[in-house]
Amino acid sequence: MEQAEIGLIGLGVMGANLSLNIAEKGNKIAVFNRTPEVTKKFYADAGELQGQIIPCETLEQFVASIRPPRPIIIMIKAGDPVDQQMELLKPYLSNGDIMIDAGNANFRDTMRRFDNLKDSGLTFIGMGVSGGEEGARHGPSIMVGGTEESWKRVEKVLTSISAKFHGEPCVAWLGENGAGHFVKTIHNGIEYADMQMIAEIYGILRDGLGMSASEIGEVFGRWNAGRLNSYLIEISEKVLKATDPISGKPMVDVIVDAAGQKGTGKWSVIEAQNMGVAATAIEAAVAGRVLSSQRTERLAAEKLFGLPKASKPQDGMAFLADLENALLAAKIGAYAQGFAVMAAASKEFNWNLPMPIIAKIWRDGCIIRSQFLDEITSAFTKDPDVPNLIVTPAFADMVKETDGALRRIVSYATMSGLPVPALASALSYFDAYRRGRGTANLIQAQRDFFGAHGFDRLDGVDKHHGPWGSGLATLA
Amino acid sequence: MEQAEIGLIGLGVMGANLSLNIAEKGNKIAVFNRTPEVTKKFYADAGELQGQIIPCETLEQFVASIRPPRPIIIMIKAGDPVDQQMELLKPYLSNGDIMIDAGNANFRDTMRRFDNLKDSGLTFIGMGVSGGEEGARHGPSIMVGGTEESWKRVEKVLTSISAKFHGEPCVAWLGENGAGHFVKTIHNGIEYADMQMIAEIYGILRDGLGMSASEIGEVFGRWNAGRLNSYLIEISEKVLKATDPISGKPMVDVIVDAAGQKGTGKWSVIEAQNMGVAATAIEAAVAGRVLSSQRTERLAAEKLFGLPKASKPQDGMAFLADLENALLAAKIGAYAQGFAVMAAASKEFNWNLPMPIIAKIWRDGCIIRSQFLDEITSAFTKDPDVPNLIVTPAFADMVKETDGALRRIVSYATMSGLPVPALASALSYFDAYRRGRGTANLIQAQRDFFGAHGFDRLDGVDKHHGPWGSGLATLA
Repeated sequence: MEQAEIGLIGLGVMGANLSLNIAEKGNKIAVFNRTPEVTKKFYADAGELQGQIIPCETLEQFVASIRPPRPIIIMIKAGDPVDQQMELLKPYLSNGDIMIDAGNANFRDTMRRFDNLKDSGLTFIGMGVSGGEEGARHGPSIMVGGTEESWKRVEKVLTSISAKFHGEPCVAWLGENGAGHFVKTIHNGIEYADMQMIAEIYGILRDGLGMSASEIGEVFGRWNAGRLNSYLIEISEKVLKATDPISGKPMVDVIVDAAGQKGTGKWSVIEAQNMGVAATAIEAAVAGRVLSSQRTERLAAEKLFGLPKASKPQDGMAFLADLENALLAAKIGAYAQGFAVMAAASKEFNWNLPMPIIAKIWRDGCIIRSQFLDEITSAFTKDPDVPNLIVTPAFADMVKETDGALRRIVSYATMSGLPVPALASALSYFDAYRRGRGTANLIQAQRDFFGAHGFDRLDGVDKHHGPWGSGLATLA
Repeated sequence: MEQAEIGLIGLGVMGANLSLNIAEKGNKIAVFNRTPEVTKKFYADAGELQGQIIPCETLEQFVASIRPPRPIIIMIKAGDPVDQQMELLKPYLSNGDIMIDAGNANFRDTMRRFDNLKDSGLTFIGMGVSGGEEGARHGPSIMVGGTEESWKRVEKVLTSISAKFHGEPCVAWLGENGAGHFVKTIHNGIEYADMQMIAEIYGILRDGLGMSASEIGEVFGRWNAGRLNSYLIEISEKVLKATDPISGKPMVDVIVDAAGQKGTGKWSVIEAQNMGVAATAIEAAVAGRVLSSQRTERLAAEKLFGLPKASKPQDGMAFLADLENALLAAKIGAYAQGFAVMAAASKEFNWNLPMPIIAKIWRDGCIIRSQFLDEITSAFTKDPDVPNLIVTPAFADMVKETDGALRRIVSYATMSGLPVPALASALSYFDAYRRGRGTANLIQAQRDFFGAHGFDRLDGVDKHHGPWGSGLATLA
């Protein structure tokens, strides 16, 4: 019997869809699930794809069914289960075999797993897969981290199953060990910011302008034909226009306004802190979800404080144009921060992350896919070592064109009591980044006063303390 | 010879000052430094306090000089050196002896050290000390974490050396293992936010109103007599009025606007993330320092973008009053966030952190000491289990009185291109917290659409997916 080109363990929703995708693209695949019934049912339901699938009931049979060196995708719950699965699998593997973790792992776990296998003759790939169920089934964006040799072994299969943007596959090898999972984490951090910003704009339309859900859906629909064109704007229109089959009301009006958060948003913020990079739009988005989940407290606080009155803007059409531009400007800020975190991590971990290629493989398949990412691809392709996305010529022009609108919208929301933490963070980021003379000189003076921390002088003179002496001398 | 009541290792600036403070308050102290010359010089310079000091050249002699059970303060560089020092010390110690780390340790290291000693008969205290050199010498704020028994052994000495607020000592036992260092970390996180907010107000006065450093110093001086009365406002006046002896210019105008950051700001943000608490004002402050240090990039960006024109407010006096109230309102937000992080950590680590007492021991000795903390003490004393500082009656009234001013100032700065990330974060925090119906319902709808995450319904009906089906079903 012909051996499989690849194996997959874990036939949950994501694993099953990924397997069908692999089979459909003409790759023979061996599949295994801890519970054999799941494997049987999966195979029974696979229809005309059965010919491409080798269902296995034991790990021994599974491993034997794959052509060496064997690439084996592990698609199970992140964390300890992955380590346990790897231990179970190891005794059956041979030199050169590749275990591939395709879950949302913390890249620090991926680095540890990679290192642990170093002297075993086995190797490890940490692979970020974005696109939800639909992506897994019909074409996800795939971010690969591991040795170049192991990538070569899986390149053909992964290329065949990935999403394509105008024919270009949305998959790439991004670097050694944790590179793929790190990039996936930041992808998700940016996704958090993107969704929070859309929600803030939705809040202005709903609570500032008093528009209905379907009217707001119309607005997003129009924007999706313009520069904001993206999957998230597209589905915003769809969900805003959907009707609840039970109450007959707009679906979104019936949904509780409390959003959960998983590891990747939090990890993005923590790693931004570890890298020493400003990622305030992502931070605002995570905080937005946190506050959303404190619903009981919010309801009590509204009773106590009431709500500020939102004024209606005078020129509705101009205001809508401002909103569209404000969202674009803020989005630039969020993406600039996300790419800056990746640039810092790339140095820290010697990954040499290819920024143009990351933007390229996010253009389709993943949740943040958009036209916008094609523009980022061009900007980074022209200038791969630019210190910040917003100073590339194309994005600098966009910022110049749209930051006034963001300014007006943040100011309007601020006066109307409509929370816009992510939009405001993006604007503060521009305003701090573009200002040659900031205000941290006062902070340095204070730190020198109370802690003798010292400071540098603009004139370069070698005198690093103020005339106040050390705090001790002055205040003793 | 009479034995010492306590020992101290590490006669750097902080250790030397703390030792003098201990001796001066009538406690006999044994001191040791790795380099004996440092110990000799310290003793030689101790003047009339020599009678209270036992200088030791060997660890053996040092340990023998202290009354058992021996409390030994270790005041050296945080990190590995502390572990190394502990290992060197251990062979000389006996049952019940207490090693006390008084540096700025990460509380997770403190927990590990505490746990490692569990079965050794020795114990460990993690002790946060705030107040800089001056505090160490004349009265710091001291945050103690460890067993209650070990606290009892050091209570008298620490009480004698701590700062006093109207006679009440600024020291307390806050809980087991890492409690003291955790609270110190959050103290520093709040300090970051406090300083960043003052710097943002300074920026508005300088770049919006065109005031000179000494004029701005005058303003802070007036505010220090009002509700903003605090050490940081006091020293802001002092440093703003200081003249550079070299150039004759205002000192702050000669200082480079790039502020470094140490571990505690970053750790505050990371732990806020780990606890799932919104701490956006602290995040904005850390990001503010990060961007300040990217000075070359900022200078280049200003050339590229120019600066928005700041308008002058029409009524200068009313504007100044707004600035004062805005700073107060924003400060409430930052402190509310800091205390919320501590409340969450207290649950997570079973510390039972006493909020009123934390506020109480921050009223003097530490960098954020202020009148304001006395008001927080009262608020938490009346209502120790309140979910958030801003809904205590006293602070709710303050927020109601001042949030309009914060709104106007953030809006002004937004339109003028003056970055106010921390002020804006505090306002967004209020505005999200006080709003019973937020916008995360849209986020939940999107997540259900693309990832079948599910949502809760306002009517409690048990139907957790939208009419779009799972993304897969809809889009396949």
